[in-house]
Formats: sequence, C-alpha cells, structure tokens
Amino acid sequence: MISIVLLGTGNVAKHLFDAFLGVDEINMLQVIGRNEGHLAHFKDKVPTGTDFTQIADADIYMIAVSDDAIALVAPYLKEKEGIVVHTSGSVTLKSLGQLNNRGVFYPLQTFSEGKTIDFKKVPICLEAEHKGDMHLLRKLAGLITLEVHEITSDQRKSLHLAAVFVNNFTNYLFTIGHDICTEHNLPFSMLNPLIKETVNKLDYLAPFDAQTGPAKRNDVKTMESHLNLLKNKNNQDIYSLLSKLIGEKYGQKL
Amino acid sequence: MISIVLLGTGNVAKHLFDAFLGVDEINMLQVIGRNEGHLAHFKDKVPTGTDFTQIADADIYMIAVSDDAIALVAPYLKEKEGIVVHTSGSVTLKSLGQLNNRGVFYPLQTFSEGKTIDFKKVPICLEAEHKGDMHLLRKLAGLITLEVHEITSDQRKSLHLAAVFVNNFTNYLFTIGHDICTEHNLPFSMLNPLIKETVNKLDYLAPFDAQTGPAKRNDVKTMESHLNLLKNKNNQDIYSLLSKLIGEKYGQKL
Repeated sequence: MISIVLLGTGNVAKHLFDAFLGVDEINMLQVIGRNEGHLAHFKDKVPTGTDFTQIADADIYMIAVSDDAIALVAPYLKEKEGIVVHTSGSVTLKSLGQLNNRGVFYPLQTFSEGKTIDFKKVPICLEAEHKGDMHLLRKLAGLITLEVHEITSDQRKSLHLAAVFVNNFTNYLFTIGHDICTEHNLPFSMLNPLIKETVNKLDYLAPFDAQTGPAKRNDVKTMESHLNLLKNKNNQDIYSLLSKLIGEKYGQKL
Repeated sequence: MISIVLLGTGNVAKHLFDAFLGVDEINMLQVIGRNEGHLAHFKDKVPTGTDFTQIADADIYMIAVSDDAIALVAPYLKEKEGIVVHTSGSVTLKSLGQLNNRGVFYPLQTFSEGKTIDFKKVPICLEAEHKGDMHLLRKLAGLITLEVHEITSDQRKSLHLAAVFVNNFTNYLFTIGHDICTEHNLPFSMLNPLIKETVNKLDYLAPFDAQTGPAKRNDVKTMESHLNLLKNKNNQDIYSLLSKLIGEKYGQKL
C-alpha cells in the first residue's frame, strides 16, 4: 500500500487523483489546495484542506500546482520523510529546494476539464535524487500506466519542448484551419478525417517520410495562390515561414 | 450501374480505384496511365492502357493526375459525352478546358502508398458545371462515403488551404518534435498519446478553446528557456513566430 498526499487542485491534480483512486494498492490520504471551491472535486472521496501546515504523513507527496507555485509549496514539506515530487515538464528537480527526497512524476499528456484520460498509455517520466526512491516511484507509476520512463531533467525539458511543438503549436494550426473554414462557410468537421489520418500515419511512418503538400513539391503556383487567398497577415507569415522551412528541409535531400 | 474510366495511376487514383472496385453498382471499365509500371496495381482487375487516344466510353471520366497534368489529359476527352471530373483540391473547374460536362470529385484526405483508407468517412467535395450532372456525381460519391458535399471552386480552394495548415504544416511540427527527441535520446513514440489526445479533443472542443501551453499563459520564463534549448535557427524562428501569434490571439481576448 502506497500512501499519497496530493497538493494542488488543477487539471493535472484532478486527473492523477482520479487515476490513483481506482487502484487498491494506493491509499489517497489527503488533498490540500488553497482554493476551497476547487477542492469540491475531491471532497466526498478523501479528506481535504486548505492549510498547507496541516499535511498528513505519507509515502509520497505529489505537488501538482502551477510551475511558479512549486517553489512556494515545497518548503511546507521540509520536515517530512516521504518522497516529494512535482509533476511539471519544465521545472528542475532543484526548484523543490533543500528537501531530502526530491523527485519528479511527470505525466506527458494534455489534460482538459471534464475529459477522462486513459492513463494506461500515458508516459510517466520519473526522476529521483536518491536511487532508492526510484523503486517506489516506479511502483506507483506502474499501477496506473504501462509506460514508465526514467529520464533526466534535461531530457524532460526537451520532451516538454517537443510537446509544445506537437501539441500547442499543432493546435494553433487547427485554429487557423477552423478560421479559414468559418470564413468560407465550411464546417471545420470536414477536416476531421484528414487530421485523424495525419496522426494515424505516425503509427507506421516517421513524420519526415509522411510529409506531403505544395511546399515539399516546391509547387510555387499553389503556394502563391494560397498566399493570395490568406487575408490575415499573421497567417501569411506562418504560411511563408513553414513553407520555406519545409522546402529547405526537403530541398537539401534531393 | 455507373461506368467509370480512371485516368492516372498515383496515390489518389489507386485509393479511389480500390474504393470503387468493391461496389456492385460501379463498373470500373478501364484505367489509363502513361507509366506502364504504375499500371501494375490495376492490371489484373480491369483493362489498362498507356494510350490516351484509346479511352473507352463511360458515364464518368475521372482525371486523377498531378495538378499540372490535368490540363494535358482533359483534351483527350473532348469528344466524349460522359461527365469529366478531376480530383484536385486546388485546380479550378476551368482548367479542364472547353469540355461540355466538367466537374470536380475531390476526396479531402491524405493518401499514402500501401495504407488503406476507410472511405466511408472521407468527405467527397463535388462541383459540376451542369446541375444535371450533379445527380450522377452525388450518386457515385454516395456509394463510397457518407460525407458528400457540394461546394464551389472558391470553397474548395479554401478547404485545400486549410488542409495545408492542419495536415502538411502539422506534420512538419511533428518532424521537429521527432528531431528534438532524437537529439536527446528519447523515443518519439513517447509523444504519441499526447498527439492523439490533442486531436481527439477536436471531437468536443473547438481548437480555440483547447489551446494550452506557455505562449497562451504568457509564461515568458518557459519560452525563453525553450528558445535557449533550441540550437536550430529555423526551429527558433518557428517557436518565436507561433508563440507571438498565440500570445496575440489570446492577449486580445483578455
């Protein structure tokens, strides 16, 4: 039985909580958060509180708060003997301050309000200052996912950067596609099968090999016609830059 | 029974051919293409040929060749009575030249060698010069997909432009994510569940509402740290531009 205190009440906290709660070998001891309203999600399932000086003793303390707040929460745990982990992709281990048993428990996923995640496939990236702590972190992660990875702080930071490209920036491109559709009275849902297929290709093709389109073909006529069609200067800038870089990437390979 | 002659042997031609072949109400009469080798895919199933002056009489002639070649193939059909359609997203109806029964049969999807597509969900976008021809085109499209849309040339061009953003450009961002992973000795497959979830969100959230990440939060510290981590000047340019535009888009809404 692994006992856990969860510190934080945001999306990551909620999703981890829900994943932990269904596992017999995990004892969710307590959830602490500043915001009384946000504690409602947890209240009828485990003891909750808003006072960070009243943290119960546990095997693992999981700090799932915004990046900036991690260093503010960590000092409350300096007398504790359990392992203290944060769940951030971009914050170093050292940001936890002068604690004895620092670690990281980073689920590589995008979490949205009200949308259940199948945790079994979510990579959980672990880091621990003391090798001895890794055993328990591995055990905990293994109870909710099949994808447990021990990586360094540097690797985690790079992974987070890659995630910004494939998730945040990709989603922004979807927004542009949505805007173009709306402007021309077309339902965005028409693009859904294309988007799904673009992603499904990754299961068997490296993205470099899956590239298609006018920029790769150096189809200048189509690119010019697209640029004329774009009225928004920002969208023209993105179109030009990405087309130029795709052209360079594949031009070099000829 | 609708009889079809297919002109072209590329990916779009192959995928359409495979979709048509399984339907009782469709009679695949003939496939014509310049490249003898590429005809191999069709050869044991229907009559094939390399001579564009030997096209059989059919209800519908489907020109599925590269955009530039459409205007070269169309003149071979000027004596024919059936409907002549091309399958391109960006070529106008007029590019078919002085034909009587011009139309467009544009499947909005990305087609790869050797990867079967479930056509039932692929939007097929139709256009016809004569209203009377639309009936037969609708019937044909409806035999292979549930998503039949009648749209104008302008709408089709816009849809193709949107497709470049959500497919070609998105795939390029995946390539950058892949490169970052490789550089830091991480398997790209770790990002797969994140990418899938980013896309699955579109089923219930508009991309504008699904946006997350440092640029949206105006988290300057994380963005600076990411830019420092990127050694490739091109990737820095994309990171900066997309972050700036995301910041502007969400800043305006505050």
